[in-house]
Amino acid sequence: MEYLKINEKISLHRFGTPLKTGAVTLDLTGNDFSEKTEINHLNISYEQERINLVYNLKPEDRIFGLGETLGCFNKRGMKFRLFNSDDPVHTPEKESLYGTHCLFMVDGEESFGIFIDYPGEMILDIGFSKKNIFKISVSDNNFDLYIFKIDTLQELTRNYLHLCGTPYIPPAWAFGYQQSRWSYPDADSVNDIADHCRNLNIPCDAIFLDIDYMDNYKVFTVSDDKFPDFAKYVKKLKKAGFKLIPIIDPGVKIESGYSMYEEGKENNYFCKDNESNDFTAACWPGKIHFPDFLSPEVRLWWGNHHKEFLENGIEGFWIDMNEPSIFYAPSALSSYFEQVKEIESLEDPGFELFRLKWLSESLANHPDYYRSFFHNNEGIQKVTNESVHNLFGFKMAEATVEGFKKYLPGKRYFLVSRSSFSGQHRISAVWAGDNMSWWEHLIVHIRMLLSLGISGFFYSGSDVGGFGCNSSADLVIRWTQLGAFTPFFRNHSATGTRSQEPWAFDDDTLNIVRETIRTRYSLFPYIYSEFMRSVRDFHPFVSPLMMFFDSERVKGIEDQFMFGESLMITPVIERNAIGRYVHLPECNWLLWKSSKWHEHNCVIYKSGDYFIETGLEEIPVFMRENTLMIQAEPQNYIGETIITELFVTGLVTDEAVYEYYTDNGEDSKHKDGEFSTLTITVNAIDDSFDIKVKINENFEVPMDVNRLSFELYGSKKGVYKETITLTK
Amino acid sequence: MEYLKINEKISLHRFGTPLKTGAVTLDLTGNDFSEKTEINHLNISYEQERINLVYNLKPEDRIFGLGETLGCFNKRGMKFRLFNSDDPVHTPEKESLYGTHCLFMVDGEESFGIFIDYPGEMILDIGFSKKNIFKISVSDNNFDLYIFKIDTLQELTRNYLHLCGTPYIPPAWAFGYQQSRWSYPDADSVNDIADHCRNLNIPCDAIFLDIDYMDNYKVFTVSDDKFPDFAKYVKKLKKAGFKLIPIIDPGVKIESGYSMYEEGKENNYFCKDNESNDFTAACWPGKIHFPDFLSPEVRLWWGNHHKEFLENGIEGFWIDMNEPSIFYAPSALSSYFEQVKEIESLEDPGFELFRLKWLSESLANHPDYYRSFFHNNEGIQKVTNESVHNLFGFKMAEATVEGFKKYLPGKRYFLVSRSSFSGQHRISAVWAGDNMSWWEHLIVHIRMLLSLGISGFFYSGSDVGGFGCNSSADLVIRWTQLGAFTPFFRNHSATGTRSQEPWAFDDDTLNIVRETIRTRYSLFPYIYSEFMRSVRDFHPFVSPLMMFFDSERVKGIEDQFMFGESLMITPVIERNAIGRYVHLPECNWLLWKSSKWHEHNCVIYKSGDYFIETGLEEIPVFMRENTLMIQAEPQNYIGETIITELFVTGLVTDEAVYEYYTDNGEDSKHKDGEFSTLTITVNAIDDSFDIKVKINENFEVPMDVNRLSFELYGSKKGVYKETITLTK
Repeated sequence: MEYLKINEKISLHRFGTPLKTGAVTLDLTGNDFSEKTEINHLNISYEQERINLVYNLKPEDRIFGLGETLGCFNKRGMKFRLFNSDDPVHTPEKESLYGTHCLFMVDGEESFGIFIDYPGEMILDIGFSKKNIFKISVSDNNFDLYIFKIDTLQELTRNYLHLCGTPYIPPAWAFGYQQSRWSYPDADSVNDIADHCRNLNIPCDAIFLDIDYMDNYKVFTVSDDKFPDFAKYVKKLKKAGFKLIPIIDPGVKIESGYSMYEEGKENNYFCKDNESNDFTAACWPGKIHFPDFLSPEVRLWWGNHHKEFLENGIEGFWIDMNEPSIFYAPSALSSYFEQVKEIESLEDPGFELFRLKWLSESLANHPDYYRSFFHNNEGIQKVTNESVHNLFGFKMAEATVEGFKKYLPGKRYFLVSRSSFSGQHRISAVWAGDNMSWWEHLIVHIRMLLSLGISGFFYSGSDVGGFGCNSSADLVIRWTQLGAFTPFFRNHSATGTRSQEPWAFDDDTLNIVRETIRTRYSLFPYIYSEFMRSVRDFHPFVSPLMMFFDSERVKGIEDQFMFGESLMITPVIERNAIGRYVHLPECNWLLWKSSKWHEHNCVIYKSGDYFIETGLEEIPVFMRENTLMIQAEPQNYIGETIITELFVTGLVTDEAVYEYYTDNGEDSKHKDGEFSTLTITVNAIDDSFDIKVKINENFEVPMDVNRLSFELYGSKKGVYKETITLTK
Repeated sequence: MEYLKINEKISLHRFGTPLKTGAVTLDLTGNDFSEKTEINHLNISYEQERINLVYNLKPEDRIFGLGETLGCFNKRGMKFRLFNSDDPVHTPEKESLYGTHCLFMVDGEESFGIFIDYPGEMILDIGFSKKNIFKISVSDNNFDLYIFKIDTLQELTRNYLHLCGTPYIPPAWAFGYQQSRWSYPDADSVNDIADHCRNLNIPCDAIFLDIDYMDNYKVFTVSDDKFPDFAKYVKKLKKAGFKLIPIIDPGVKIESGYSMYEEGKENNYFCKDNESNDFTAACWPGKIHFPDFLSPEVRLWWGNHHKEFLENGIEGFWIDMNEPSIFYAPSALSSYFEQVKEIESLEDPGFELFRLKWLSESLANHPDYYRSFFHNNEGIQKVTNESVHNLFGFKMAEATVEGFKKYLPGKRYFLVSRSSFSGQHRISAVWAGDNMSWWEHLIVHIRMLLSLGISGFFYSGSDVGGFGCNSSADLVIRWTQLGAFTPFFRNHSATGTRSQEPWAFDDDTLNIVRETIRTRYSLFPYIYSEFMRSVRDFHPFVSPLMMFFDSERVKGIEDQFMFGESLMITPVIERNAIGRYVHLPECNWLLWKSSKWHEHNCVIYKSGDYFIETGLEEIPVFMRENTLMIQAEPQNYIGETIITELFVTGLVTDEAVYEYYTDNGEDSKHKDGEFSTLTITVNAIDDSFDIKVKINENFEVPMDVNRLSFELYGSKKGVYKETITLTK
C-alpha cells in the first residue's frame, strides 16, 4: 500500500493500481508516495479479491455522509451496498440506489473523514450486523482511500471539494419551479401545462419531456407526429419563459438504418460481450446496445449528437436509466422461459410457484448482466462493467457535457442525472429517482438532500408529490412546501398514477400550491445569492444544523435544515398534522409562517423546544438572529423582469450583513469577476436600526436594485419598517 | 330502507335483506322497523349493485377507527378497500390488510359514529380523491348500517360493544412474553429456545409452532419425525412454564387417505366451484380445498378436530392464511403458462416483458378466485366467497372455538387470528400480520393497535422486531420496549431473515431486552388488573390520549398512548434517537425511564411539551397524576410463583385509588364473581401520604398479597417510601 500526505488535512492510501475514475481533480503528480502498511482508525484484512476495512465504533460515534442513500442522516445502524441500481421501490431495507458517493465522516471523540475512490461494489455495514463494528468491504484490491483529518462536517466537505472540485452551477432559471410527468408526450400536452401555468399565475421555468417524445424511444430522435416542428416549438415555449428538458437514455435501439445504431456499430462504440460482439440488453426501445462511455472517443461521439437539440434551443437534459438499467438480457430471457417450463411440467408445483415470481423479478438488472459486458476503459483496458459499474452514469454525464461544451460553449447548462458517482457533482445535478407518493418519503427526501450536499451535490432534489403510486392534495401541498426550500424543485409523477400538477386537485389546493411557488420565486434573490456563495465557500447550500451549531442535540436533528445561512426550514411532513416540534438552537429565531410571500407577521422565539402550530397552507421557516432574508416580487419565470426592489426581513439584535449577489445567470463569466453585489448592513442601535447599503458593481452586470424595503424585528418597539431608495 | 331506533345512542338503517354476519349480538327481535329513506349525515346514491354513501367533510373533521388499517390514526386523507387480503408488504399506499372493521367516528363540530355490518367489499375514500368528500362504496345493496349518536371515541367503543359484545379475554399467561419464528420446526429447536429463555433468565410464557411442525403442512397433523412424542413434549414444556401454540391453516391438503381430506370430501364440507365440485386452490400444502366455515356443521367438524391437540395439553392456536390466502388456482396456472408462452413467441417482447412480472404477481390472491368459489352460508344460501369474503377468518375462528368449547369447556383459551371481521373481538385476538423490520413500522404498530382497540380488539399486537426482512439489535430493542407495553407481546420473524431472539445479538442487547421483558413481567399485576377493568368498562386497554384528555392538540397525537388508566407510553421509535418529544396534557406527570423494573428515579413534569432525552436502554413511561402503578417481582412465567408483594408507585397530589384485581386467570368464573380485589387509596396530606388498603376477597381466589411497598412522589419533601405489611 502506498501512502501520500497531500496536505495537513488529507492523506491518500493507495491499494494496488487503481483505475482512474475521474472523481479526484487535485493534481497529485510529482508527489512522492511512500510505503505504509497501516491506516489510522482502520483494521485491514484481505479476503480473496476483497479488502475489508474495519473501524470499531465507539458508543457515541455518529456516521454522516454517503450521499444518495436511504435511511437516517446519521447512517449508524444501517447497511449499504454501493452498486448503482435502478430500483423503483425505495422501502427502508433497500441497500442500493442509483448513485455511489463513498464519502463519510465518523463524528465522535476522535472524528475523521474517509473517501474511497473505487468504481466497483462496496458494502458498508455500519453497525447493522454488529452494533459496534463498521465494516467496509471493497470488492477489489485496487482503490484509493483518502483520510481527512477533520473535526466537523463542514470541514469534511470543504476538504473533499478541494480534492474533487467545485460543485456544478446550473443556469439561474434552474432555481425556478419545474413541472414534469411521465409523460407529457406531445406538443398539445406540453401546451396544456404551459397554458395552465401562465393562466393560473403559477410561476414555472421548465417542462420536462419524458421518454414518449421520442420516435420509438430512439435516443436523439423527436417524434415528428408529436412535435411537428420541434425547433420552432422549443423557441415558442422559450419565449413564454419555459425551457424544455428532454430525457436522454443511454441505450441505443438496435434498428438497421437508425444512425445512432449504425454509427455506433461501425465504429465499435458499443460495449462488448464475452465474444466481442456488441452486448445486447433491453430497455424502453426494446433491444439495445450501450455506448461505451468509458471511452473518450465514444463520449465525444455521444456529445456531438446533442447538436440538433442544442442548436434548436434546448439548454438542458435529464439523463436516466444510466446505472445502466437493463430490463432483461436476451440470453437470460431464454433461460427464464426454460425454467418456467420446468415448473409447468411439475404436477403440483408447490413452493416452486414462488420461483415464478422471483424469476420474473430477477429478469431486470440481474447481477450476471453486469459481469457479461465490457468497457474499453479510456481506450486502454478491457474491463467488465461490474468492475467499473458505478462510473456508467458519471461517464454518460461527461459525454453529455461534451455536447454542451461544443454547442453551448461558455454557457451554463442544465443537467440532472439519475445515476452518479463521486466527482460528478462538478458537472451535473442528481435527483432522488423514483420515489413514491408516501408521506414517509418526505423525511427520506430531507435526509438524502443533506447527505448529497456533503458530497458536493449542492443542487439536487426529489420528485415533489412523489413519483410512484397516487398522490393526494395534502401530500402535494406539503411536498411543494418542502420542495420550495430545496434547490431542484420539480413536481414529477409516473404514468398510470393520478395527476398531481398544482391544478390537479381543488381550488384550495391550487391556491396554496401557487402561493408556495410564488414564495419560492420571491426568494430567488436570496436563493441565488446563497447558492453562489455556498459554491464559493464549499459549504453545502442545504445543510444540517450541525454545520452551524455545535451540540449533541443538534447532531440528532434530521427533520430541520439550513437553507443558505439565514433560514432554517422546519417543514411539516406528517399527514393531518396541526403543527410540529422544532428545536431552536443557541440564538433567537424569527418565525415566519410562509403562506403568502409578502405577509410576514413574524414572531420571535428564544432558543429551545417548541410545538409550532401550523395550518395546511403554512410552512414554518425560522430566520436566524442577526442574519437577513431578501425577497423580490415573484415573476412568472426567472428573468422575466429586472429585479429593482428587494424586501429585506430579519431579526437583528446586534449586526446583520447580507450580500445580495447577481450575475447574468447563464455563463461562467462570474468566475472572472463578472458579478455585482449589494451589501446590506443592519445595526441594532437604541431600539432602532442603522442601515447601510454598499454596491459593488461590475459594469457588465448592472445592479438594478434601487429600492429596499425593510421589515426588521428585534427592537423593543416592535417591528420596524423602512424603505430606502438608492440613487446611483 | 328500514329503520330501527335501538336506543338513545344507536339506530339501525337496514338496506335490503342483509346476510347475518354474526357481528352483532344484541338481540333485536321483537323490535319494529319503520321505513325511512334518509340517513343523518349521509347522502345515499345507487350505482348498479353498489350503494354509495357520502359525507361532506368539514375542515376540522377527523376520522378515527377502521380497526386494522395502515396509515395515521386519524384516517382523513386515506383510502381503504375492506376486502381481507394476504399482502405481506405493508407499504403506505396499500388499501387492504387482513381484517375488516368498518366502525369509525367522525369527530368534528357534529360528531357521530358509523358501523357497517357487511361481509363483502367496501371502499372508503376518506378525502383522498377529493379533500372534502368521504365516500363509502358498498358493493351490494344488502347491509346494515348503524349510526351512533356519540360525542367521544370512548362512547363509540362503549356503544359498539353494547351492540357487538364483550371483548375476548385470554388466559392470564397470555400477558407474558411470547417467542416465535417461522420456524422452530422441531423439538430440538423449540428446546433450544426454551433453554435459552430459562438459562438467560428471560421470562417467557409461550413458544409458537409455525407451519413446519406439521406432516407435509397437513392441518391437524404433527410430524412424528420432528416431534416424536408430541403429547409428552407439550407436557414437558408446560412444566417449564411454556405453552406451545401451533399454527392452524384452513386449507386441507388434497391427499387420498388423509382423514381431513376424506371426511371433508365425503360430507361435502368443502367450498364448491362453479360446477359444484370441491374448489381447488393452492397454499402451503400444495393443492387444497377450503372448509366451508360458513356452515355450522363444518365449524363443528373442524372444531372437533382440535381434540388431540387440546387433550395433549395445547391451550391455544394461531390461525393464519384465513383471508383465505390462495397462492394460485390451478385453472389460473394454465392460463398463466399460456400467456407466458405468448410473450415468449414475440420476437422483441418490449414492454410485454413487464407483464411477466405482473402475471406472476397476480397469481396469488387474484380477485377472480374469490368469485369462483361458493359457500353454503349457514346451510341455506349458496353465495360466492366474494360476497361474504370478509367472514372467512371470523368463521374459521368460530370453528376453532367449537373445539375449545368441547375439549376445554369453561376454560379460557388463547386464539390469535390473522384475518378478522367485526364481532370477532369477542372470540379471538388479532395480530398485525406480516409487518417488516422497518423502523417506520413502529408507528404503524401503535396506530393500528389504537384503532383495533376502538373496534373491541383489546388484546392485540404486532410482531416485535418485524416479520419480514432483516432486523437489527437496536430495532429489536426499541420494538421490544414498545411491545412490552402492548397486550400481545410476541417476537416473530420470517424464514430466511436474520434471527432476532433476545440473545441473537450482543450481550448489551441481550441485557437490555431481558430487562425490558422483566419490566413487563413486573407490571403483570397492573396489566392484568387494567385489562380486566378495560373489558368490564368497554374502554380499550391501550387507548389514544383523547380518551382521557380533551383538546385539539391531544387529538393529533398518534405516537403516545395510554396503557391502562395510569400509564402513558411515549416509546422511542426512531433509529439513533437520543430522545423524543412528548406532549403532557392537562395534569402533572411522573416520568419513569424504565430501564430496570425496580429502579424508578422518577421526575415530575408539569403539563407541556418536552424533549425527553432517552438512552437506548430506556423507554419513557409517564404516570398520570393521582393514579398508581403496581408491580411485583418478575417471574419466569406468569403463575410461576404467588404474588405476595406489590410495589406501588405514583405521583399523588390529591387522592389516588388503585384496585388490584386477581382471579384464577384460566376460566370464566370471574364472571360469576370469582375474583378478589385489593384497593389501595393514597391521600396526599400535609406533605405526606395517608395510605389505606382494603381487601375484597372471594374465598375461591385467595388474596395472597401481604406486603405493599410504596414509592410516592408529589410531596415537597421528595420521594416518600413506606412498606405496609398486611395481616389477615
